[in-house]
Amino acid sequence: MPSLLIKSVWKEGDVVDVLIQQNRFYKIASNIAPEDIPLDTKIIDGAGKAIVAPFYNGHTHAAMTLLRGYADDMSLFKWLSEYIWPLEGKFTAAHIYCGSRLAILEMIKSGTVFFADMYWNREETIRAAVEMGVRATIGVTFAENLMTPESIEENFNFLKKECHHHERIQLAVMPHSIYTVGDALWIRCAEVARALGLVLHTHISETNEEVENCKRDKGKTPVEYLESLGVLGPNVVLAHAIHLTAEDVEIIKERKVTLIHNPGSNMKLGSGIMDISSLMKAKIPIALGTDGASSNNNLDMREEMKLASLLAKVKGDPKLLTAEEVFHMATINGAQAYGIDAGLIEEGKLADALLLDLNNERLIPNYHLISNWVYAADSRCIDMVICDGQIIMENGYVRDQEAILADVQKIISQVK
Amino acid sequence: MPSLLIKSVWKEGDVVDVLIQQNRFYKIASNIAPEDIPLDTKIIDGAGKAIVAPFYNGHTHAAMTLLRGYADDMSLFKWLSEYIWPLEGKFTAAHIYCGSRLAILEMIKSGTVFFADMYWNREETIRAAVEMGVRATIGVTFAENLMTPESIEENFNFLKKECHHHERIQLAVMPHSIYTVGDALWIRCAEVARALGLVLHTHISETNEEVENCKRDKGKTPVEYLESLGVLGPNVVLAHAIHLTAEDVEIIKERKVTLIHNPGSNMKLGSGIMDISSLMKAKIPIALGTDGASSNNNLDMREEMKLASLLAKVKGDPKLLTAEEVFHMATINGAQAYGIDAGLIEEGKLADALLLDLNNERLIPNYHLISNWVYAADSRCIDMVICDGQIIMENGYVRDQEAILADVQKIISQVK
Repeated sequence: MPSLLIKSVWKEGDVVDVLIQQNRFYKIASNIAPEDIPLDTKIIDGAGKAIVAPFYNGHTHAAMTLLRGYADDMSLFKWLSEYIWPLEGKFTAAHIYCGSRLAILEMIKSGTVFFADMYWNREETIRAAVEMGVRATIGVTFAENLMTPESIEENFNFLKKECHHHERIQLAVMPHSIYTVGDALWIRCAEVARALGLVLHTHISETNEEVENCKRDKGKTPVEYLESLGVLGPNVVLAHAIHLTAEDVEIIKERKVTLIHNPGSNMKLGSGIMDISSLMKAKIPIALGTDGASSNNNLDMREEMKLASLLAKVKGDPKLLTAEEVFHMATINGAQAYGIDAGLIEEGKLADALLLDLNNERLIPNYHLISNWVYAADSRCIDMVICDGQIIMENGYVRDQEAILADVQKIISQVK
Repeated sequence: MPSLLIKSVWKEGDVVDVLIQQNRFYKIASNIAPEDIPLDTKIIDGAGKAIVAPFYNGHTHAAMTLLRGYADDMSLFKWLSEYIWPLEGKFTAAHIYCGSRLAILEMIKSGTVFFADMYWNREETIRAAVEMGVRATIGVTFAENLMTPESIEENFNFLKKECHHHERIQLAVMPHSIYTVGDALWIRCAEVARALGLVLHTHISETNEEVENCKRDKGKTPVEYLESLGVLGPNVVLAHAIHLTAEDVEIIKERKVTLIHNPGSNMKLGSGIMDISSLMKAKIPIALGTDGASSNNNLDMREEMKLASLLAKVKGDPKLLTAEEVFHMATINGAQAYGIDAGLIEEGKLADALLLDLNNERLIPNYHLISNWVYAADSRCIDMVICDGQIIMENGYVRDQEAILADVQKIISQVK
């Protein structure tokens, strides 16, 4: 694997050289001497560009890009039962592969190098992520309402056998929710995740209805319920977490759980507003996710940063969730949630990076790059995407992009 | 002026030819016969592209792009008094010209062909808009706290002399707000606007504080106050209109006033949430605006559509403000607010249009183009921008874009 040298790139106000060896940042300095640069190094001209950490998408359902725009602007139940589920029912493994590739293409083009995925046919999503050069945490998904005892056993066998599948891909145990997985399976999922050293990821307290039903049926909030089963711990990552009590927040803090905020999906589905202010005061780690493209309807983490910040401020406090804070959520917090030693442009870290075009009109004037990136930019500002020391987008081009799109068009025409 | 023929372009599910003659859509049909096409026609291949109406930005302060990212995430008063006003104080006419060009460049690249502008040095913004081929309604701005009696007279003289300045540019009377313009000047502004057949545009009920102060000082809400002065009528366009009473809504409806919704700015400054649902029920025309780049921080109407729709839904009703409704606001409602016979791709209408690239990953699958455009796209999806029958962006390129950006960089380095 040849080294990469990014010459004269703008980094937090300084102009530096960035040398990547193997898959890590080896040296970052104002001028790296020629004798320190290996012979086979590929040189990238960083002039007029800024290097920043890329995005780590903490919660999505990649293949649901196939459902983008299929149904919008309706109540959750009608949307799921009359549109989403019937179309999903027609999906084969080939659809999941095509949909995952479409999702990864979109993510790379918008600066995302990692995604945590909860869906079916995980082998297809793993294959797409491996081929396209991104990182991923791929869920082995549990939902008792949709599975047989045999398919649940098969899930656990897959976890044991494949849990160290590929260096950029990790598996995670993903019980879908408190309303689709029962007590015994929750306990087993938690034990297996701990035994194998894997993340356990689920949806929690997304809607008022979920919380009210849980209180009615179990006498506890969803967070209290998982706590009572012994599920919660530092390997647990919870998506949504909108309708939390003060006691829920205490439990989450005590158990060192990470939360994933999905503002776009929460707004579009009318689910509610995460109480970012209280959660940040409690110093609970929060990362960002796009959720699936059927409820967003894109996988653009830059847009998600802006939505998160604006949504935090809308109730009347413009000081909440600054550009720097939300950038932190979308980058290093996402990497940390899933145990990836990346998310900072720093010697020794895994070499994931974006080059932004400082000559794009939205990054001008450059008083404060991170403000421009969060509030003003869009994906047109991205010049290059690097993941694990490899260039995965250059001059706006991702390998095989035409074939990926053509395959989606073909397969969609068959299910409509 | 040569005619334009867009061959085989996707329009609302059909493939059509679109012939533009002079500055209007002359014929839109499934196959325009060669004998109907003038000899000097420029042919554009529309295959794989969709034609949609472009954006009409109903409220902005174009030259404030120069303040993009200069100060964020702070209270309104600190932001204005310690950052925005001191830097604005250093601006000369040359800055306003450069900042307006930067704003127009950004607007064209994100699909906007018209903007309504309230700022100073209107001659510079007019010059920039004329040169760059867009439409604009340019404000002659009144703020008594910042003006002398002589400069106020000069404003009225300018209005009388220049009110039919250029075919794509109109002037409008723009008293800044109820707290910077007194009774007598309000009445005179309203009379002059009516006499000259011009739009009167102002900020209204943007913050709770504005409303409370008005009630304390005048015993009326801001809307009631303008109504009592005889200001309101069908030529009046009000920006923000967040904190309205039921009586305010009645007055607005009765007087056939148009409102401009600025969700990005309202969220970022923590101003509050416009009650879209009640206003739509009352059938009040609403268009969209970006506000200035210092409080947004971009001029991207596509993003503004998504913000408007998500913000309407967030309180719990995902059926509010559908993709089609918000697209309507951002296009034809904006054109109508400012009296422009455009905003629809329809024979006889002024020839303003966007071509979208249907092979962009965010517009795939194409179950519902307007949903994809509102919820999933970004400016990378725009292939071509046409205003008044002229191509103003082609292959991502806007005339003089390098010079525009270089001039901004140079002038900014002098005020920092």
